[in-house]
Amino acid sequence: VGQQRLIFDGLQYSDWNRGVFEGWREGGIACVHVTTVIWENARETLDEIGKWSRLFRAHDDLIFHARTPEDVANAGSDDRVGVILGFQNASPFEDSLDFVQIFHALGVRVVQLTYNNQNLLGGSCYEDSDSGLSRFGRLVVGEMNRLGMVIDLSHVGDRTALDAISVSERPVAVTHANAKWFRDHPRNKSSEVLAAVAAGGGVVGAAPYPHLTPDGTTLESWAAMVARLVEELGVEHVAIGSDVSENLSNAYLDWIRMGRWTHARDYGAGTSAHPHWAPWPSWFQGPADFVRLLEGLSKVGLSDEDVAAVAGGNWRRFFGEAFAPGDDHATADDLIGRFISVTRDGKTP
Amino acid sequence: VGQQRLIFDGLQYSDWNRGVFEGWREGGIACVHVTTVIWENARETLDEIGKWSRLFRAHDDLIFHARTPEDVANAGSDDRVGVILGFQNASPFEDSLDFVQIFHALGVRVVQLTYNNQNLLGGSCYEDSDSGLSRFGRLVVGEMNRLGMVIDLSHVGDRTALDAISVSERPVAVTHANAKWFRDHPRNKSSEVLAAVAAGGGVVGAAPYPHLTPDGTTLESWAAMVARLVEELGVEHVAIGSDVSENLSNAYLDWIRMGRWTHARDYGAGTSAHPHWAPWPSWFQGPADFVRLLEGLSKVGLSDEDVAAVAGGNWRRFFGEAFAPGDDHATADDLIGRFISVTRDGKTP
Repeated sequence: VGQQRLIFDGLQYSDWNRGVFEGWREGGIACVHVTTVIWENARETLDEIGKWSRLFRAHDDLIFHARTPEDVANAGSDDRVGVILGFQNASPFEDSLDFVQIFHALGVRVVQLTYNNQNLLGGSCYEDSDSGLSRFGRLVVGEMNRLGMVIDLSHVGDRTALDAISVSERPVAVTHANAKWFRDHPRNKSSEVLAAVAAGGGVVGAAPYPHLTPDGTTLESWAAMVARLVEELGVEHVAIGSDVSENLSNAYLDWIRMGRWTHARDYGAGTSAHPHWAPWPSWFQGPADFVRLLEGLSKVGLSDEDVAAVAGGNWRRFFGEAFAPGDDHATADDLIGRFISVTRDGKTP
Repeated sequence: VGQQRLIFDGLQYSDWNRGVFEGWREGGIACVHVTTVIWENARETLDEIGKWSRLFRAHDDLIFHARTPEDVANAGSDDRVGVILGFQNASPFEDSLDFVQIFHALGVRVVQLTYNNQNLLGGSCYEDSDSGLSRFGRLVVGEMNRLGMVIDLSHVGDRTALDAISVSERPVAVTHANAKWFRDHPRNKSSEVLAAVAAGGGVVGAAPYPHLTPDGTTLESWAAMVARLVEELGVEHVAIGSDVSENLSNAYLDWIRMGRWTHARDYGAGTSAHPHWAPWPSWFQGPADFVRLLEGLSKVGLSDEDVAAVAGGNWRRFFGEAFAPGDDHATADDLIGRFISVTRDGKTP
């Protein structure tokens, strides 16, 4: 009867294999939210979910599919690591409101509303201009609320993020980003967005990912950033999302950044001077070093209780509540009233 | 050796059959831009193009596929009516810049950047807020310019429309809309957009479609609207886009308006008081009545030459020029420089 492992990682995106899963367990990880797709459409996403169903079968001594509040509550109490399946884009929904329910039924529990480009739902942090949540986007948020699917705002534009927080009747997440005051990067979050996520009961996963931290970031300076977030947002709203990628090539990075939307070089979170996968800092070489992050948080003054909350307690509480189904009694007419603020009827003759 | 027929219709969207094609010829029509898809993805669009290839074979005495400058120049000089294939949405491109070339190769020559909802390219006239042209949207406009594919702005939001006019190196079209000053409706166009289309060398197709005209519009008042457009924009920039739909049921109207994006009632250009296909006015019951529109234009004072330009001469010139291939020598790096105003490189470290 071992102790329950604590650590939840807010996001990883790797070429998955047994070695990765063994690394999780050795790193003391209880549960990981994994990215299954970034640009893929519905058909391609079914392939990825199919691959995960085979991974769950082949490695059932190391991992399990975490999709219920109970799964989240129990993660880390046996040898297996819980895996939460997520999308970094709403692209698998294509143009269909029905597809939200379909992917929920297949066990997907986290969907980032946009990846790096504008989509049918809203605007991205990399676009010049952000529309806010579209008509379809508002309906998708309502459907995700109903089903118990987490709205992730990490790559989402500020205006769409604030719209989503306002429209969502349930708390939302930023699974993997830092504060813009730590590093001024489009992928990091303004204080307004961070405060709104926390005010709505949501959680922000701070990232050691090098493109999202200033050059020369040390464990101490990263931990100090987390400590300041704890102070500003409240300890229950801060967690970790490592943004770790294992076994992905630089060629694969082109897919991640350029998808099919451009034929010219796009550097994503990188730059021409740093076009490739960024080298991880000495103090965080991968999941085995989670424990060092926690030591860093202790050193900058967080209590053991607060370190435990940031390390996993907050994600455990948040995902546990988020995966419970929402109100299933809203009718289509309720939805249209709640989520389409401008109906065509009435506004113009 | 008959006289060449004059009339070009900027847009029709029907359940196509031999009766429709016979009606075109009887109405003296030389060429029609037809809508093949509105919400369909790439796979579904291939089906629709397949259906058109069968229609062209089965009815080759009545219609032909118009896709070159020569096709447009010669349309109406024999018994057949030229058919220009178009999309009312960029949905068939999905997320792929390559798909622009693929659908061009299949003979598609007009693409409306957005239908009624925001998409990957930009914002729609029915959204609360319009992002303007996205990063992907700018690249698609460049690719359409290169290939010789017409950018249609009829359902597009004002900001995205103005961005597209600014980014496009070739004239653009509004195939089917009226002036907002004629009827204040989201689908009708602001004076700013109309002026910009004309200033760029484009053409606006005025519509007798009842949802886009004031209640009680007569042939005289509609013709007077066209005459005022001729005065404001210049006669070479005004044409007709009837927006005629034949053989489409009220049930099909739900698909047109609601697609797969909402499960609640959406009225599109209509209202709860007028939810169905609007009855056409006595003075325009269908393509056979094109000649009456032209009589109306004469009666409000347009010269025979100007009536001929509006009736078809302008579309003939515009499509003829538009279908010629553009500059094929731009490299991917040129494109990124021209169309991505904010590259990730340089802006942030």
